[in-house]
Amino acid sequence: MWLSDEFPRDLRILRERRPLVHHFMNFVVMNDAANVTLAIGASPIMAHAREEVEELASKANALYINIGTLDEYWVESMIIAGKAANRNNVPVLLDPVGAGATRYRTETVKRILSEVEVSVVKGNGGEMLSLAGITGGVKGVDSVASANLDTAVKVAEEYGVTAVVTGPWDYVSNGKRGVVVKNGTPLLQYVTGSGCMVGSVIASFMAINRDFVKASVEGLVAFEIAAEKAEVRSKAPGTFKQYLIDELYNLTGDDYVKMAKVEVVQ
Amino acid sequence: MWLSDEFPRDLRILRERRPLVHHFMNFVVMNDAANVTLAIGASPIMAHAREEVEELASKANALYINIGTLDEYWVESMIIAGKAANRNNVPVLLDPVGAGATRYRTETVKRILSEVEVSVVKGNGGEMLSLAGITGGVKGVDSVASANLDTAVKVAEEYGVTAVVTGPWDYVSNGKRGVVVKNGTPLLQYVTGSGCMVGSVIASFMAINRDFVKASVEGLVAFEIAAEKAEVRSKAPGTFKQYLIDELYNLTGDDYVKMAKVEVVQ
Amino acid sequence: MWLSDEFPRDLRILRERRPLVHHFMNFVVMNDAANVTLAIGASPIMAHAREEVEELASKANALYINIGTLDEYWVESMIIAGKAANRNNVPVLLDPVGAGATRYRTETVKRILSEVEVSVVKGNGGEMLSLAGITGGVKGVDSVASANLDTAVKVAEEYGVTAVVTGPWDYVSNGKRGVVVKNGTPLLQYVTGSGCMVGSVIASFMAINRDFVKASVEGLVAFEIAAEKAEVRSKAPGTFKQYLIDELYNLTGDDYVKMAKVEVVQ
Repeated sequence: MWLSDEFPRDLRILRERRPLVHHFMNFVVMNDAANVTLAIGASPIMAHAREEVEELASKANALYINIGTLDEYWVESMIIAGKAANRNNVPVLLDPVGAGATRYRTETVKRILSEVEVSVVKGNGGEMLSLAGITGGVKGVDSVASANLDTAVKVAEEYGVTAVVTGPWDYVSNGKRGVVVKNGTPLLQYVTGSGCMVGSVIASFMAINRDFVKASVEGLVAFEIAAEKAEVRSKAPGTFKQYLIDELYNLTGDDYVKMAKVEVVQ
Repeated sequence: MWLSDEFPRDLRILRERRPLVHHFMNFVVMNDAANVTLAIGASPIMAHAREEVEELASKANALYINIGTLDEYWVESMIIAGKAANRNNVPVLLDPVGAGATRYRTETVKRILSEVEVSVVKGNGGEMLSLAGITGGVKGVDSVASANLDTAVKVAEEYGVTAVVTGPWDYVSNGKRGVVVKNGTPLLQYVTGSGCMVGSVIASFMAINRDFVKASVEGLVAFEIAAEKAEVRSKAPGTFKQYLIDELYNLTGDDYVKMAKVEVVQ
Repeated sequence: MWLSDEFPRDLRILRERRPLVHHFMNFVVMNDAANVTLAIGASPIMAHAREEVEELASKANALYINIGTLDEYWVESMIIAGKAANRNNVPVLLDPVGAGATRYRTETVKRILSEVEVSVVKGNGGEMLSLAGITGGVKGVDSVASANLDTAVKVAEEYGVTAVVTGPWDYVSNGKRGVVVKNGTPLLQYVTGSGCMVGSVIASFMAINRDFVKASVEGLVAFEIAAEKAEVRSKAPGTFKQYLIDELYNLTGDDYVKMAKVEVVQ
């Protein structure tokens, strides 16, 4: 399996270094995102004040901008932090939550992408289709369209990023290399912010691995293997979410070797 | 049992349509409210920015305004969204969290009720007594008074709404019809925002059923039957809350037929 | 064991009176903090609007200011509330989350301490070292330094407060009396905001016990005994957190007598 040697090593490095991941996380998912970040082995900080985001983003090992409950104040702070991250070579992950659902979200995502150098953009099918210029795939923050590797390639090329399209299968592309991840469970759709949480895990790997296609795949597989193991313990979303955090905490390199379903397609 | 035929059908319709419920939810309960909304079968979106709430509330299938952690910015956005919902025939649920506890909350609730056409007002005993003009029944956001059907009737008539008074027994009235719901468990008092969460379930039913007395009863019973089933699995609030979400997700029309304790009293 | 007679009585008083604890809690931990407050037996309210914090803090039985996700608006409200608490003899707990991590946090903590009469300051090792004038002990909101009783004594004397330094062992000092608490489990480091949650429990005891060294020890031991009991049920952080809330709810005076590890050292 691709990354069978690298994943166990990177997971170990992550847990040794405990990198600092500065989050702009939406209010709905802040707690889960912080717990997921701790469970995989990194150190989260949530902060949005203009007075400190430049300083924090400069010191962080990765910056994760999630626009889920955006407003004007937060967007300004996200851009200040993003620029500070860029100046300090801190990689940036953008989650364009609800892009395509309102004009404000679509415009904010484009504004961030034009003002900040983003390393990875991760969204669901509808959001990524919207970024690729295809509308009508979102209802609120839930995707009602399916995207594919072409969508990832198009977003990657258009914005010069590594693009991650989540869904039943996940597609990762930087325009040159493409990967499909087939792990996961439909139950994740019944846990609010599961897509936001996987972003925290990807950002944690970005903090220690500058090959962003690999870091994205590592984050996706780690989260989704944990979800598969959690689903064995519960098939209902309340308890499933707690087991998912447990399983992330207990995840080993060996789990990757045994359970990862990854295809390099380009 | 009243609604024995309609509840199973409405639950099925809800899960087929997955209606969009735009929430202004307090920061404390956002995550649980979103997960409860997904578990019953609807699609939640939390959004508060002036730049997008008009657009979102217009597209939503129901709007839920909960003032639990209000401030000036949020209140202005709630009113913009409420007016947009009214223009687009989107039903509005108002949860007057802490009405009577501070002047600001009491005044904000009255302002929303005067500027927005609200379909359902749902609060605990102290809050609804405060709306009915009787003070002294709240301590913070917890009720220390018991209200009854008269309180619901009075609020319904005074504000032209369907009024839902939650407590050991719940009272629903639109001024013409009255219903008492006797499901639930005292353990819900030890889960923060359980009253806010039941609002998410009522709003989900309002999105597919414009008989708001029935939608309110359907939401109350669904949530409280799930709570009764959860309590069988745990009698302590940490695990109980997770089982409650599980049981909402697993709820069937048959559960209503077997477990609902509903009396039509008017 | 010290407090073997007083703890059971104070826990009973707490659950009888259900004191109101006004929280300025960070967005990440609001839900857990509210549930922990309910589980120990008090009544939480989260509120930050300028229009109501003076009124609420005046009526509350304790005020808990946690700066975890601070910004300018919130800081102004914290100070308004703190002054109102002071005028009404309501005890104030300050959690200086991330002090030392950014200039803004360090300055805000000093500003609050100069404008508000704080009864208890509770922080992790890095934060409390920063308050004692020793920098370099924090990474984001996580402590990477170990402090000790000297740190607590120094903060207590410098600011005229009861100081609580949390960590593998916890140190409490008001400058005259010192106590070490040796309960707890390292698993708490994998639950985001576990330090913030223990603050809610301490504030709940402060609401009924004006000996703040004792109230601090009571809160620490209650939370950490619950954590020890939870760890018996799960050694992974997702389910552990739920069991922790369960065990706080089920805590008895007898648990203190059997399990407390408290040393009076001054």
